[in-house]
Amino acid sequence: MTRTLGTPALNVALIGYAFMGAAHSHAWRTAPHFFDLPLRPDLTVLAGRNQAAVTEAAAKLGWSSTETDWRRVLERDDVDLVDVCTPGDTHAEIAIAALEAGKHVLCEKPLANNVAEAEAMADAAAKAAARGVRSMVGFTYRRVPAIGLARQLVAEGRLGQIRHVRAQYLQDWIADPSAPMSWRLDKQKAGSGALGDIGAHIVDLTQHITGQTLTGVSALLETFVKERPLPAAAGSLSGVAGEGTGTVTVDDAAVFLGRFSGGALASFEATRFALGRKNAIRIEINGSRGSLAFDFEDMNVLHFFDGDEPDETAGFRRIVVTEPGHPYVGAWWPAGHGLGYEHGFTHQVVDLVTAIAAEEDPTPSFADGLQVQRVLDAVERSAAANSAYTEIKA
Amino acid sequence: MTRTLGTPALNVALIGYAFMGAAHSHAWRTAPHFFDLPLRPDLTVLAGRNQAAVTEAAAKLGWSSTETDWRRVLERDDVDLVDVCTPGDTHAEIAIAALEAGKHVLCEKPLANNVAEAEAMADAAAKAAARGVRSMVGFTYRRVPAIGLARQLVAEGRLGQIRHVRAQYLQDWIADPSAPMSWRLDKQKAGSGALGDIGAHIVDLTQHITGQTLTGVSALLETFVKERPLPAAAGSLSGVAGEGTGTVTVDDAAVFLGRFSGGALASFEATRFALGRKNAIRIEINGSRGSLAFDFEDMNVLHFFDGDEPDETAGFRRIVVTEPGHPYVGAWWPAGHGLGYEHGFTHQVVDLVTAIAAEEDPTPSFADGLQVQRVLDAVERSAAANSAYTEIKA
Amino acid sequence: MTRTLGTPALNVALIGYAFMGAAHSHAWRTAPHFFDLPLRPDLTVLAGRNQAAVTEAAAKLGWSSTETDWRRVLERDDVDLVDVCTPGDTHAEIAIAALEAGKHVLCEKPLANNVAEAEAMADAAAKAAARGVRSMVGFTYRRVPAIGLARQLVAEGRLGQIRHVRAQYLQDWIADPSAPMSWRLDKQKAGSGALGDIGAHIVDLTQHITGQTLTGVSALLETFVKERPLPAAAGSLSGVAGEGTGTVTVDDAAVFLGRFSGGALASFEATRFALGRKNAIRIEINGSRGSLAFDFEDMNVLHFFDGDEPDETAGFRRIVVTEPGHPYVGAWWPAGHGLGYEHGFTHQVVDLVTAIAAEEDPTPSFADGLQVQRVLDAVERSAAANSAYTEIKA
Amino acid sequence: MTRTLGTPALNVALIGYAFMGAAHSHAWRTAPHFFDLPLRPDLTVLAGRNQAAVTEAAAKLGWSSTETDWRRVLERDDVDLVDVCTPGDTHAEIAIAALEAGKHVLCEKPLANNVAEAEAMADAAAKAAARGVRSMVGFTYRRVPAIGLARQLVAEGRLGQIRHVRAQYLQDWIADPSAPMSWRLDKQKAGSGALGDIGAHIVDLTQHITGQTLTGVSALLETFVKERPLPAAAGSLSGVAGEGTGTVTVDDAAVFLGRFSGGALASFEATRFALGRKNAIRIEINGSRGSLAFDFEDMNVLHFFDGDEPDETAGFRRIVVTEPGHPYVGAWWPAGHGLGYEHGFTHQVVDLVTAIAAEEDPTPSFADGLQVQRVLDAVERSAAANSAYTEIKA
Repeated sequence: MTRTLGTPALNVALIGYAFMGAAHSHAWRTAPHFFDLPLRPDLTVLAGRNQAAVTEAAAKLGWSSTETDWRRVLERDDVDLVDVCTPGDTHAEIAIAALEAGKHVLCEKPLANNVAEAEAMADAAAKAAARGVRSMVGFTYRRVPAIGLARQLVAEGRLGQIRHVRAQYLQDWIADPSAPMSWRLDKQKAGSGALGDIGAHIVDLTQHITGQTLTGVSALLETFVKERPLPAAAGSLSGVAGEGTGTVTVDDAAVFLGRFSGGALASFEATRFALGRKNAIRIEINGSRGSLAFDFEDMNVLHFFDGDEPDETAGFRRIVVTEPGHPYVGAWWPAGHGLGYEHGFTHQVVDLVTAIAAEEDPTPSFADGLQVQRVLDAVERSAAANSAYTEIKA
Repeated sequence: MTRTLGTPALNVALIGYAFMGAAHSHAWRTAPHFFDLPLRPDLTVLAGRNQAAVTEAAAKLGWSSTETDWRRVLERDDVDLVDVCTPGDTHAEIAIAALEAGKHVLCEKPLANNVAEAEAMADAAAKAAARGVRSMVGFTYRRVPAIGLARQLVAEGRLGQIRHVRAQYLQDWIADPSAPMSWRLDKQKAGSGALGDIGAHIVDLTQHITGQTLTGVSALLETFVKERPLPAAAGSLSGVAGEGTGTVTVDDAAVFLGRFSGGALASFEATRFALGRKNAIRIEINGSRGSLAFDFEDMNVLHFFDGDEPDETAGFRRIVVTEPGHPYVGAWWPAGHGLGYEHGFTHQVVDLVTAIAAEEDPTPSFADGLQVQRVLDAVERSAAANSAYTEIKA
Repeated sequence: MTRTLGTPALNVALIGYAFMGAAHSHAWRTAPHFFDLPLRPDLTVLAGRNQAAVTEAAAKLGWSSTETDWRRVLERDDVDLVDVCTPGDTHAEIAIAALEAGKHVLCEKPLANNVAEAEAMADAAAKAAARGVRSMVGFTYRRVPAIGLARQLVAEGRLGQIRHVRAQYLQDWIADPSAPMSWRLDKQKAGSGALGDIGAHIVDLTQHITGQTLTGVSALLETFVKERPLPAAAGSLSGVAGEGTGTVTVDDAAVFLGRFSGGALASFEATRFALGRKNAIRIEINGSRGSLAFDFEDMNVLHFFDGDEPDETAGFRRIVVTEPGHPYVGAWWPAGHGLGYEHGFTHQVVDLVTAIAAEEDPTPSFADGLQVQRVLDAVERSAAANSAYTEIKA
Repeated sequence: MTRTLGTPALNVALIGYAFMGAAHSHAWRTAPHFFDLPLRPDLTVLAGRNQAAVTEAAAKLGWSSTETDWRRVLERDDVDLVDVCTPGDTHAEIAIAALEAGKHVLCEKPLANNVAEAEAMADAAAKAAARGVRSMVGFTYRRVPAIGLARQLVAEGRLGQIRHVRAQYLQDWIADPSAPMSWRLDKQKAGSGALGDIGAHIVDLTQHITGQTLTGVSALLETFVKERPLPAAAGSLSGVAGEGTGTVTVDDAAVFLGRFSGGALASFEATRFALGRKNAIRIEINGSRGSLAFDFEDMNVLHFFDGDEPDETAGFRRIVVTEPGHPYVGAWWPAGHGLGYEHGFTHQVVDLVTAIAAEEDPTPSFADGLQVQRVLDAVERSAAANSAYTEIKA
């Protein structure tokens, strides 16, 4: 039951140290203090291009050493796993090289900026797996306990046949036209806008919960604000505006319909212009026996309607997902003491480390990441083709 | 200010006395007791095909006389207004004949079962209006106070430029495959399924609130249960199953995307298969200055996000729409004493009677009903054309 | 099943025509159109002191004749039932006289302004009942369907042993110190303030739902604003201020603890100073097997926690109390089409008329009203005695 | 702006390693990775009576060394601060000794098991403060961002004069009579039951938010289940029952009324028998200008009613307290990414370390803890004196 003091180490390298890097660092530090892990994560090296910045970040985030070239990380014998938290245009190159160097890889989502890259990554992952080298893509919201419970209820048949999936990921951080340019608004760096950044999450989550895949989509994309002030300081999302303007080359919002493999109708929306909604991931699923509803603004709660109840006492149950028997919760606090955003990252580390020790392939795999990429690609092709319904290759 | 005792009468005939007939009867009876109307509605005649049934209904609902042929109603001099609550396939014939006979007409929604009929009705309404004969289509949810307030806030510019409209009308009354056939599942009678029955409402409501129209759509339709048991007793929605099965010829659910005339992206869903949602009309609108959210399951509430607030104190306000200054509310109870479903019908009567007395055309007009019909038609055409984006004639 | 055309009449007289008078009039008019009543209410006479005002009110509210002296009403042979909607200081005199005159009586709550009056009324009611003359006190919130369902669930044992009752009735209409004086703030007229006006409701509701009575209380009363401007126009609650001030002689707020006969702890609060709460009647009950929660701001919903569920899927169910099998609902609309404030009054008429026809005593009886009065009295005595726990006579 | 690598250390000793010990350990480990602290916490020593158990806990929780006698901890020169997470009956002895030994002290709540102990502790803290030795009591919920915002809004006058405070702390972990005995149900160990364990929190929170103190109370206490099975394994709260029963000597629930120094009426309830409520801390405050509502079941949200708004657009705002400008939030994630239960402990460490470095006394002080103890004591005395209103010494 208990982690022995002699637990072998898993030496981790993190590439990138912005928002995601901080979340991943917290997870690597925290997981062993709450969960009994078969391997002890060691925060071995943090990599970033600027020596002064990476040194400061390593001190703040708890990493033992630094590198300014990610290629150097792959050459180090004291690195077992590479955690890729860089912008999407670099994922394929780094992850493939790391796998080829025999390092396990955790790669942030979306897996890549296009299908071709994602295919190459999935190929590399399959080859690496044959050699015992593991890989995982970071769809961390899967590890929110309420999402885990949702998947369980569907798997147990409590929803019956799924008929409707509706999912929205609503943010508002660029609703103001004077919010400045950033790399996330540049197609070269980011691949796409709201679609890949947040739409990817609701595609993954709904497929994960239902155990089904999207088989086709019909879509509209929109860029509401096409020119934005350049930031005063490059790279700053929150920066005040500088001089001149830049052209937004990604979508501000994506809406799409679709069908799931089991016959359900689906409706998706991802936007950065839903004023007042900060990080609202809303998922609602209706089946022939029951329904589910979730909103990340109230992340410790899952609403469940049990259609087997008599009409007079049936109703959506507000399940506070903090019971010891709920996914991941037993390691934390007593019932009613809710978890926060970063716990999903800690759970991700737990599952990844457990799979590595068990010599099993963790999920979501790079193949899963590729499948999501194919959905995003189909959305873009449909939008470019007058919203024509566009099939998604299985 | 006060209704005088000498208020002239408005003699009303009601055609049909099912669910909608009961709601309309209540409204005609109740409106003058809470509102100071310029004309006093008189429940003159109720029409239905079965003499025994219509006689009993008239006694129960408060009508003074009966007819078994609606054509007879139009010949009566003591009828000023015809209220059409029959299935959609009869709307055009009855309403056009009534207008030609010089009777004002209130017609239930959807205006007709197809665009051609709706065009004929709108033409007839325009001609009648030139003679002072008024017509209105019964999109009664417009008269829910929270919806009225929503429209006001948009009109005052509190939302700024509208960027997103998302609307769902969710029911579950045929989610069970053993629920029997009914005229509402027969394309000949009903025109369409969830699309026309409930989708029409959210099309009308979102256009009404935003003051804009939908300019194009991309759609999917689905019939989840294609054969259903015939009802034990014909015409009964709630009846137990009889022998044999019938084929469902309408959609069980409709999902569609679109664009509004002002540039907003829209996402719509209408379904009778959302288990646990009984009559959930949900509308959310995001603009550049503010946002709104409404759910008919909590019909006396409107949620409003004011983007002009500082971030630290901004939040969706739960406005309980029961203040004397809210639309229609002053005539009813003190603040906090909520209204119910049928009040929308009473407000509809108030506005219709007021317009007739003022010799003005009430809204929503038959032209408004035709425009909604064109949206529904575009949805069906898009769904039949591989979801291709389909323009809507202005 | 069906109301026959030959249904005998029940001739009703209404004394008083302010807010409550309008609600009662609506109920008398509406009940027979939705429910199959054994007696047909006839709105025979409306009584009020001012001839012009009562004449206008009768026209507006639908009454056939008027009287300016309530004693005249009792002398009329064409009156079967007297509905008392006057201020509390007149209840005892009118109701007792009416019962003695052989008229059935519906009396608004609180039954009286003090225990002595209430005792006399309960005595009169008991004597009248022996002669077949019926009486009921108007705790109308009992007839909200969600409250009816709550009582059913407790009676079925779904809550087990009751351990906690917490109830609040929160309003804010005099939170502003510049709101003017009114008869409701005058102890002579109103008997008490928030305590009797709204506290009486939550005492009755919690006793009704639990089937138990309060056996003792400990209380604090407070008058936050002791002097208020006199109204510009006498008797107007909403009136702008006139010249001079008057002294508020009733409580603005009452808080009290207590114990129920079955051993539960109770906590009550009634206030007119809860800014932002307009008519929030909140009741929460915890038992050994289940819990209930209700808020009149969302009156068509009852929240039910079933402790028999496994921890992992247990949660408060949001029951939308609009199913045909819910109390009173079958007579109205399909599921999901909510009712409003005034429906409780209509249901009250239904139950009263049904009891009269069945020659049974309706509930809540005057004895029930007396019991509530004793609770209110104990609250006042406790507050006057340093909050000492004060027993309530059974 | 940035924590330098040369930040001096603050060596911490933790006494106790159960639920609270795990939460405190997490906070000491995590604070420096998100906040720029003036001192770097070092997890120097963990103390517990059983060597094997404390060794294992130290490894799991991240402490460098162990002691089995807390007195040894005070003798160590490498300890700057003692964090007391033991049961309440040991707080006074340990904390006073630690202060006398010149160690800063963080002591879990309630400060002590009775007023006499708390007075001694507050005296010791005052004397220690004069020598630059700091102390703080662990009312950690003060550091939930929504609570911090609530206090700010009151301090800014946005609520005006406070008129009502209602607070409930609802749990259900012993609602089942078969839940076994534990030290928390033993008056000798725990001092009191729900009152001191959770009632203390809502007393502290409401006083903190309002900036006022309770001046008197009237109370009822209740023990619903007086005999419980002994646990199979001693000390285990969640253990299955063993043989024999033990007597519960503390309250299962406490309800009390009171008055605040500024004139507000208050109503409190603390219970472990509110079936379905796991850790529901609910606070509602009504003032003359505005109102607030909070529920820890939705801990990242504060509801604020601004009475200055026009009636037509006024409503409780659901403020998602995750903006960079909200208390503590800037150090964590972007807007909309909620925090969890343990973040309050991290914020507590931040404030404590900051105060120590600034040579200031942190809050809540032991004097604050004593004041809460006096309220709890007054509650018990009132309950023992027929609920008589009992003054609280300032």
